[in-house]
Amino acid sequence: MSQISLADLNAASRDDFVAALAGVVECSPWLAGQLAAKRPFTGINQLHAALIAAIQSAEPDVQLSLIRAHPDLASKTQPAAGLTAETADEQNRAGLDRLSEPEYVGRANNAYRVKFGFPYIVCLRRHTRDSVLRDCETRLLNIAKTETRRAIEEIGRIAALRLDQLVIADDKLKVHGRLSTLVLDNQIGKPAPGIPVELVELATLGENRVIARAVTNADGRTDQPLIGGRPLPIGRYELRFSVARYYAERNVSQSDPPFLDEIPLRFAVSEPEGQYHVPLLVTPWSYSTYRGS
Amino acid sequence: MSQISLADLNAASRDDFVAALAGVVECSPWLAGQLAAKRPFTGINQLHAALIAAIQSAEPDVQLSLIRAHPDLASKTQPAAGLTAETADEQNRAGLDRLSEPEYVGRANNAYRVKFGFPYIVCLRRHTRDSVLRDCETRLLNIAKTETRRAIEEIGRIAALRLDQLVIADDKLKVHGRLSTLVLDNQIGKPAPGIPVELVELATLGENRVIARAVTNADGRTDQPLIGGRPLPIGRYELRFSVARYYAERNVSQSDPPFLDEIPLRFAVSEPEGQYHVPLLVTPWSYSTYRGS
Amino acid sequence: MSQISLADLNAASRDDFVAALAGVVECSPWLAGQLAAKRPFTGINQLHAALIAAIQSAEPDVQLSLIRAHPDLASKTQPAAGLTAETADEQNRAGLDRLSEPEYVGRANNAYRVKFGFPYIVCLRRHTRDSVLRDCETRLLNIAKTETRRAIEEIGRIAALRLDQLVIADDKLKVHGRLSTLVLDNQIGKPAPGIPVELVELATLGENRVIARAVTNADGRTDQPLIGGRPLPIGRYELRFSVARYYAERNVSQSDPPFLDEIPLRFAVSEPEGQYHVPLLVTPWSYSTYRGS
Amino acid sequence: MSQISLADLNAASRDDFVAALAGVVECSPWLAGQLAAKRPFTGINQLHAALIAAIQSAEPDVQLSLIRAHPDLASKTQPAAGLTAETADEQNRAGLDRLSEPEYVGRANNAYRVKFGFPYIVCLRRHTRDSVLRDCETRLLNIAKTETRRAIEEIGRIAALRLDQLVIADDKLKVHGRLSTLVLDNQIGKPAPGIPVELVELATLGENRVIARAVTNADGRTDQPLIGGRPLPIGRYELRFSVARYYAERNVSQSDPPFLDEIPLRFAVSEPEGQYHVPLLVTPWSYSTYRGS
Repeated sequence: MSQISLADLNAASRDDFVAALAGVVECSPWLAGQLAAKRPFTGINQLHAALIAAIQSAEPDVQLSLIRAHPDLASKTQPAAGLTAETADEQNRAGLDRLSEPEYVGRANNAYRVKFGFPYIVCLRRHTRDSVLRDCETRLLNIAKTETRRAIEEIGRIAALRLDQLVIADDKLKVHGRLSTLVLDNQIGKPAPGIPVELVELATLGENRVIARAVTNADGRTDQPLIGGRPLPIGRYELRFSVARYYAERNVSQSDPPFLDEIPLRFAVSEPEGQYHVPLLVTPWSYSTYRGS
Repeated sequence: MSQISLADLNAASRDDFVAALAGVVECSPWLAGQLAAKRPFTGINQLHAALIAAIQSAEPDVQLSLIRAHPDLASKTQPAAGLTAETADEQNRAGLDRLSEPEYVGRANNAYRVKFGFPYIVCLRRHTRDSVLRDCETRLLNIAKTETRRAIEEIGRIAALRLDQLVIADDKLKVHGRLSTLVLDNQIGKPAPGIPVELVELATLGENRVIARAVTNADGRTDQPLIGGRPLPIGRYELRFSVARYYAERNVSQSDPPFLDEIPLRFAVSEPEGQYHVPLLVTPWSYSTYRGS
Repeated sequence: MSQISLADLNAASRDDFVAALAGVVECSPWLAGQLAAKRPFTGINQLHAALIAAIQSAEPDVQLSLIRAHPDLASKTQPAAGLTAETADEQNRAGLDRLSEPEYVGRANNAYRVKFGFPYIVCLRRHTRDSVLRDCETRLLNIAKTETRRAIEEIGRIAALRLDQLVIADDKLKVHGRLSTLVLDNQIGKPAPGIPVELVELATLGENRVIARAVTNADGRTDQPLIGGRPLPIGRYELRFSVARYYAERNVSQSDPPFLDEIPLRFAVSEPEGQYHVPLLVTPWSYSTYRGS
Repeated sequence: MSQISLADLNAASRDDFVAALAGVVECSPWLAGQLAAKRPFTGINQLHAALIAAIQSAEPDVQLSLIRAHPDLASKTQPAAGLTAETADEQNRAGLDRLSEPEYVGRANNAYRVKFGFPYIVCLRRHTRDSVLRDCETRLLNIAKTETRRAIEEIGRIAALRLDQLVIADDKLKVHGRLSTLVLDNQIGKPAPGIPVELVELATLGENRVIARAVTNADGRTDQPLIGGRPLPIGRYELRFSVARYYAERNVSQSDPPFLDEIPLRFAVSEPEGQYHVPLLVTPWSYSTYRGS
C-alpha cells in the first residue's frame, strides 16, 4: 500500500480523497465522501475520530450494510468469498490460513451469522488464532444490539490500523504495542549479553510456533523489541532464555546438569496497544520476572 | 521383598545370612559370605561400608566377575537375558521398558560392552531415561580402569538401595532425596492453598510425562513431598502451577486473559540424594523461584 | 512464679484454688471463687474461657471494680501506686521504665482516666512502647462503652499469659508468636551460614534498641527463633544482616566498598500471636524479602 | 566559571589558551603552555589525554612540583592555605567543611605529608567524607612511588571534571555517573506513582544526611536521576521509600501497622562514573531490589 501525507489528503479533490481512502473501510465509499466534506483534518487522530463519528451517527440500516460489506473469516477448507486485499493480508497474519480446525472455525462463524444476520467482524491483527476463536464464542452469547456496537468498534480498529499504514501525519494513532525483555545477571549485578531468547506463541488448538528469536546485547536487551510497530496479538506466549551456556562460558560453578538451563516465562497479552516489559533476573540458582515498564 | 532386622542378621547362621543378602549384589554369594564373618554390625551404614570394602579389596578378576554378573540394560525390542527380579523392577521404574529408541539404547550398550568387555552398570533408580543415555555415552569415552571403578561405585549404590529396603536398623543409609515446593502469595503475605501443581519429567527423547500431581494445602505446601522416600532421578523437570483460578476465586483483579495462569518452573536435578525445595513466590503480575532448603 | 498442674488445680480445695489463681486477674479473688465451682476443667483453654465468661457475665459495677483494680501504667518520674509483682514485671518488659517521655505518657494516661473514670488497661507484653502510646491515644477517642469492652478484652489477654506461665496442662493457650528468618545465598543455591543478624526494635520516641543477636547456622537459620515462646510485641522492627564479609570469605568478587553489606529489612508486627518468617534471599548484587510461613 | 568552545581554544593565541586553562591544573601554567603547542585538538577527550601525557612524561622533579602545588585538604578548624577557587568549591561539595572530626582528618593529612613529603591529593567530587578518610588511610600504607602515580591519577581526574565544566565540545569526557530508581507495584503489574523517595548518604563518622528527595512519577521513576550530571561519590547510601500510604490510598488491605511502610535499600557506590539503577519491586508483603541497568 503506497502512502499519502495528510496534507495531500486535505488538498486532494473529493474524488481523489475518496479513492485514497478506498481500502480503509471495506467497500464503503459513502463514508469517505462524508469525511471529504469535513476537511481539513489537523491530524490523523482527528481524521480517525471523524470516521468513527460518521459510522456511529449513520442510520441503523446504513450501519448494517457497512457491517455486511465485511467478509466472513476465512478458513482453509472454506475460503471466504469477497476478501479485499487488505483483509486477506490481515487474516494471513493471524494464522487463520494455517488453521487445522477449519470446521470448528467455520461452525463458529456460521453460528454467528445465523444468530445475528451479519458476519463476525474482528480486528485480526490484534489477535492470535486462539483469542479469535475464544472471542467469537464469547460474542455469540451477546444480544444483537451489543454485537452491532462491537462490530462497529472492530471496524474502527481495523480502520485505525489501515490509516496508520496509509497516512503520513505529524501525530500518531495509538495502535501499536510493544513487547520487550531484559536479562539481568544478579550474580554480577550486570546485564547478561549473548543469551538466546525465543518468543513462542502458545496455541490451545494446533501447534505452538516461534514468532521471534533474538540474542541479548551488551545491555541485556534485544536490539529490536520482540514485537513492535504493530499491535500485540491477544494471546498466550512463552519467552525462553538459555542461560546455562552463558554461565558455563563465564566459568561460573553450576551443577551437572545445570539447575537452570532453558528458562520459560509464560504470560498472556490482553492489551494489544500496551507496553509489555517481561524481564528475567537470574542467577544459576534463582530467577524472577514481573510485568515491568 | 520381606524385611529383616539388623539384629536378626547379626544373630543368623552363616547360611541364613548369605540367603538373606542374596538379592543385594547380583549373583555374588561369596560377598555375603565374607560379610558374615565380619559380624556383628552396629548399623546399616557399617554393613554397607563393609560390603564396599570387600568389593574394593577383591582381586581384579573377582571384581570383573562381579561386574560381569550384572545384566545389560533392557530395551523393549531386545530384552536382556538373566535379569534378577530386583533388576527388572528397577529398570521398569527408570522407564527403560517404555523406550521408544530401543536401537539407540541397544547400540550404546553394545558399544560399551564391546569397548570394555563388561556390561554398562548404572544405579537406575538414580536416573531418568535421559540421564541414563547421557551417562552411558559419557562413560564410553573413559578408559577401562576408570570404568571398572565406576562400575563398582554403581554396584555400591545399587546395593545401598537394596539394603535400605531389606534391612531394618536404627540408622539410615543416605540414599533418599526429596523434592518439595511451596506457593506463597506475595499479594497477601500468606501461603496459597488450593493451587494445582504438576511435576513433569522432561524427556529429550520420547515424551514428557507427568510424574506427580498435587494441590497445595493450607500451608501452601503439598501434603507429601513431590518426590520422597527414594532417590531423585537425575534429569530435567518442570513444575506447573495454575494460579489464575486461585486469584479469580479471591476476586483479585486480573487482565483477560490473565497475565499469569499456568506458571512453569523448569529445573534439573543433579544430586539424587539431595534436598530440592523449589518454591513459587507469586502475585498476578510477578513470580520468582530459587533453590531453597 | 512456681507452676501448678491443671490436675492439681482441679483436685485442690476451694481455698487453695483461689490462692493459686490469686495473681491471674488483678486483686479479684471473687473471680477465682466462681471458677472453683466450675471445676473440673478439661484443659487450660476451657479454664481461660470460663474466666472470660465469668467476667463478661458479671454485673456492670462488678466489671468496673475489676477494671479499677488495675494500676495506671508506670512512668519513670511518676511511678504508679499499687503495682502487683506481675504487673511491674510486665511493664518492665515493655520498656515503660525506660521512657524518656514520662510527661507524655503520664498525660495520655491521665486524660484516659479523666475521660473514662478508670485506668487505661493494656496487655503490655503484646506491645512495644511505641504501640502502647499509639493504642492509648487511639482508645482515648472511643466512647466509654467501647472502652469497658476493650478493657475486659485486655484483662482476658493478660490473664491468658499469666495462666500460660502458671498452669501445666496438656493443651496450650495460643498466646505466643514467633519471628524467624533464613538467609539463602541465591548465588550458590544454598543456605548461607555464619551471617550475623541483629533484630532492632524501632522507636519513634526514644532510642532504637537491639533486642536479639544471632548468627545463621548451617541451614541459614538461627538456632532459636529471634522471638519465640512469648507474644510478638506490636511495633516496627529492623532485621540487619551483614553479608559482605560472608562473600569476602568465600572469595566472591565484590566491588569496593561492596554494593551490599549491612542489609536492613524493616517491617512491622501487627499480630502478637502470629508466625512471622522474614527471610533474606541474597546475592552480592540483589536481595529480596517477603512475609513467609 | 564561564565556558569556552573547543574551537575557540584551538583558535586562541597561546596566551589566551594558557589563561583559559589556568584553573584546570592547580598553579601549573607550564602545562597549558605545552598543550598550546599540540593544538588543534579534535575533541575534549584528546585534549585531556594530551594533558595526562604531558604530566606523565614530565621529569620527576617537575611532577613533584605539580603535586606540591596542590593544597592540603581543608578542615574546619584548620583551613588550608592557598586554596584556589576551584578547590575550595570542590571541598565544600564533599562536606569537608562540615567535618566534626577535624583533628582526625588533620592527623591523617599530616601523617601523609610527613611520610611522602607532599600533600594528599584526591578528586573530592568522586568521594563522600567517609570514603576520603578511608582512602587517605589506605594510601598512607603505600610506598612513595605508588603515591606519586596515584597523585597524578587524581590530578588527571580533577582536571577532567574541570575541563568538562569549562570546555564545550562535540564529544564528552566520561566523568559523570548516574543513580536512578524505579518503583514497580508487583501487585498490579504497574509503575507506582506518588511514592516519596529519599536518598541518604550514610556516614560512619558524623551524621547521615538526606542528599535528594523526590516523588515517583507516572512511570514509577523520578523526574530527574537522584544523582546525575556529576560523579557519584564513592560511599554508602540508603534509599527510603514510603509505601504504606500509597497502598492505603488505593484501598489495598494492609495490616495495622502495615507490614511494610518505609523501606530502606542500603547499598554502596564504588564506581563514580557508573550507572546505578536501584529499583524497588514491591507488594504490601514483599520487596526486592538489585543493581539494574
